[in-house]
Amino acid sequence: MTPDEFRRFGHQVVDWIADYRATLEARPVQTVQEPGALRAKLPAEPPLAPEPFEAVLADVQRLILPALAHFQHPRFFGYFPSNGELASVLGDYLSTGLGALGLNWQASPALTELEEVVIDWMRRMTGLSAAWQGVIQDTASTGTLIALISARERASGYSLARGGLQQVTEPLVVYVSEQAHSSVEKAALLAGFGREHLRKVAVDGRYALRPEALAAAIEADVAAGRRPCALVGTIGTTTTTAFDPLEPMAELARAHGLWLHVDAAMAGSAMILPECRELWRGIEGADSIVTNPHKWLGAAFDCSLYLVRDPEHLVRVMSTNPSYLQTAADGRARNFRDWGIALGRRFRALKLWCLIREQGVQGLQARLRRDLANAQWLAGEVRAARDWRLLAPVPLQTLCVRHEPPELAGEALDRHTLGWCEQINSSGAAWLTPAVLDGRWMVRVSIGALPTERRHVEELWRTLRATAEA
Amino acid sequence: MTPDEFRRFGHQVVDWIADYRATLEARPVQTVQEPGALRAKLPAEPPLAPEPFEAVLADVQRLILPALAHFQHPRFFGYFPSNGELASVLGDYLSTGLGALGLNWQASPALTELEEVVIDWMRRMTGLSAAWQGVIQDTASTGTLIALISARERASGYSLARGGLQQVTEPLVVYVSEQAHSSVEKAALLAGFGREHLRKVAVDGRYALRPEALAAAIEADVAAGRRPCALVGTIGTTTTTAFDPLEPMAELARAHGLWLHVDAAMAGSAMILPECRELWRGIEGADSIVTNPHKWLGAAFDCSLYLVRDPEHLVRVMSTNPSYLQTAADGRARNFRDWGIALGRRFRALKLWCLIREQGVQGLQARLRRDLANAQWLAGEVRAARDWRLLAPVPLQTLCVRHEPPELAGEALDRHTLGWCEQINSSGAAWLTPAVLDGRWMVRVSIGALPTERRHVEELWRTLRATAEA
Repeated sequence: MTPDEFRRFGHQVVDWIADYRATLEARPVQTVQEPGALRAKLPAEPPLAPEPFEAVLADVQRLILPALAHFQHPRFFGYFPSNGELASVLGDYLSTGLGALGLNWQASPALTELEEVVIDWMRRMTGLSAAWQGVIQDTASTGTLIALISARERASGYSLARGGLQQVTEPLVVYVSEQAHSSVEKAALLAGFGREHLRKVAVDGRYALRPEALAAAIEADVAAGRRPCALVGTIGTTTTTAFDPLEPMAELARAHGLWLHVDAAMAGSAMILPECRELWRGIEGADSIVTNPHKWLGAAFDCSLYLVRDPEHLVRVMSTNPSYLQTAADGRARNFRDWGIALGRRFRALKLWCLIREQGVQGLQARLRRDLANAQWLAGEVRAARDWRLLAPVPLQTLCVRHEPPELAGEALDRHTLGWCEQINSSGAAWLTPAVLDGRWMVRVSIGALPTERRHVEELWRTLRATAEA
Repeated sequence: MTPDEFRRFGHQVVDWIADYRATLEARPVQTVQEPGALRAKLPAEPPLAPEPFEAVLADVQRLILPALAHFQHPRFFGYFPSNGELASVLGDYLSTGLGALGLNWQASPALTELEEVVIDWMRRMTGLSAAWQGVIQDTASTGTLIALISARERASGYSLARGGLQQVTEPLVVYVSEQAHSSVEKAALLAGFGREHLRKVAVDGRYALRPEALAAAIEADVAAGRRPCALVGTIGTTTTTAFDPLEPMAELARAHGLWLHVDAAMAGSAMILPECRELWRGIEGADSIVTNPHKWLGAAFDCSLYLVRDPEHLVRVMSTNPSYLQTAADGRARNFRDWGIALGRRFRALKLWCLIREQGVQGLQARLRRDLANAQWLAGEVRAARDWRLLAPVPLQTLCVRHEPPELAGEALDRHTLGWCEQINSSGAAWLTPAVLDGRWMVRVSIGALPTERRHVEELWRTLRATAEA
């Protein structure tokens, strides 16, 4: 495609996306379709001759669009928000169009240095001390895997340079809350610890990790000749946005030489609000933090921050230095390839930079406060409504709700819950995520899509009642 | 940013990228600057109030652009090509603008199903059998890490479900060529094998792994009570684009129960040319392959294919299934989160789909053949020129060259080589990557940037001679 064709089709793409965003509210949040329905409409063989780009764009409209769920929709209340603010989208457009590639500092100085700057902006915005430095990763899953490998190498005295995890003498153990995200268990397994060395610590009535249960688990392992290695605390769990108590956890981590990793994937964004920071008190006692500006904050996916207090350790675990990557700038500049798994890196800083500048810190704060207020409004309605129950505290923007008519219990209640949730989802009126809490299904309502205003939450509440109470 | 503002600024961004690509040839390939120079020009504090987006775009022009190296430049001969073809760029624009997120099939059916389709297109285009299935990852580093973890789990009978790599009885060993990419060693260390269990097998005069050296290394480990686990073959090594002999390697892998992973990051693209497929004869004996359409082929970075013959094994190693990710479609649709590390996934298939359709297989083939011919032309010139030497075969599009005036040898020759290479790079006339081969520096000339025509290669050859012979 020539630059002139790109200009022409690029304008069409931009207009199409502008129209998509502007008219999204009129669409169902998702259209129900059968697995394989789209695949069956696409040719099995690639085209030998070039096709006109008009034909590709027509297929996006005709085939792709109807087979998507819409995370940018004002009635999207599923999972967590995955906001791609349009200023951030343009930052990503710049990145892809420039086609810069981070392999080392030299390969794209701006890619590295803008990343250093915006990460430090995020650090200041969330009230963290100057002891933290960071890097942009793709997702929290990757950040948590890096954290657990870092923990493994610290506890084993850099076993990777010798016999690896295959030759540790005391088995290393990882501790997480039983409410931790599935990516934490996955990271522990991929890092080689083994499920038998993963302790899922009990939670309290607010679904936060119980420090005394943690202390007991650590002591039992030490007594049995195992070595406590890593502890993962979650700030805003996926099921209920619970906050693990970081202060006592950091104290235990210090006492037992544990690496404390904090999964703040969702709630890290909330820390741009000074009034929320009490929720992660003790954060300075952590060794690493992961937080996702690509969730609530609005950076176009993927943009996950991984912050550490000891970058030298990270580099020692992650670095490679083949001759073809050496440059005259080595030693005087940062090579982010040594801060993560991937060698090649996109210019992701642009999308975060564009977001923060175009919105301003105050603009971002105002939007997050809007969502917190909407969640509190809905929480009040649920609390006041007959037969409706809030199943967990609402410290952020996610509610766990259930409609509990007195005649239903046990599996019948589960069927009722999953039934009305599925009915709403398949109607396209809203999108909600069901999840299991204390062994029973409930429904998460996660507020905070970019265009979600109070009226959408009010509308949702009417839909919830009308559907579940019918 | 409103959709209308997005329309206005989006057109500006598209026009700016079109101009950038159209006028790139007139720029130096890179501008020399000091580490920290850009950072010093950027505010340390994020803006509290929103800034006009015009100001952001002006800073991109004024600050970012001069601090980039240009991988899309016709005189870019560094590393390997990292081509972002403009049709593919638009595919990525669609992806980012839609803001779809792959968490499971249900969260974006089109994201999953288009990925299945374009991966199968790539399989057909590269002549692989129907036994292969795949997924798009970010980079080959990630794919190779997944491959080595898969190998570890197969050899250990899914130790992750028990005591992990901490409780294997016979240590597991990984074999690679001494010319393997740095990401392979990194993957082995991150997967926990330990450097002492990584064998770097000697290569022959063409820099390809020597099967008899591999056989001897395997036998020595078995005799010592260690367990051969994984073997990585490279198709197009980074330093010289050497091809490891897959057929005898696959035979050894079969005989000893090794997982054979093939790193075809660079040369996988060449396999869309039937005349190149002899170079990876034996590929069907592999367990996994990684190949990067984001290199030579032209898919906007990042777009790396990871192909396997046994998806069930991959899913067993990688899967997680918390309640909040379960949907009614489970079991009837593919959940790509279980094919890699990250849970959240971009709609990357769009950029590969747009590329293949707009170029057609024949268009892609024609461009790659152009580059192969340009490389052979330059190889002929180098061979014929006095005091110039080609240090390795040129099976693809990368040359390893050295200017060897008779009076220079040893470190003096190294100084000469690094000197003229640095002089060219810092002049902005071209970008070349120096690398060490057989203990001495040489210069890689990697042909294949999208806009690189014969005249640019001719111009490069004049520059090489004028600079090195001066």
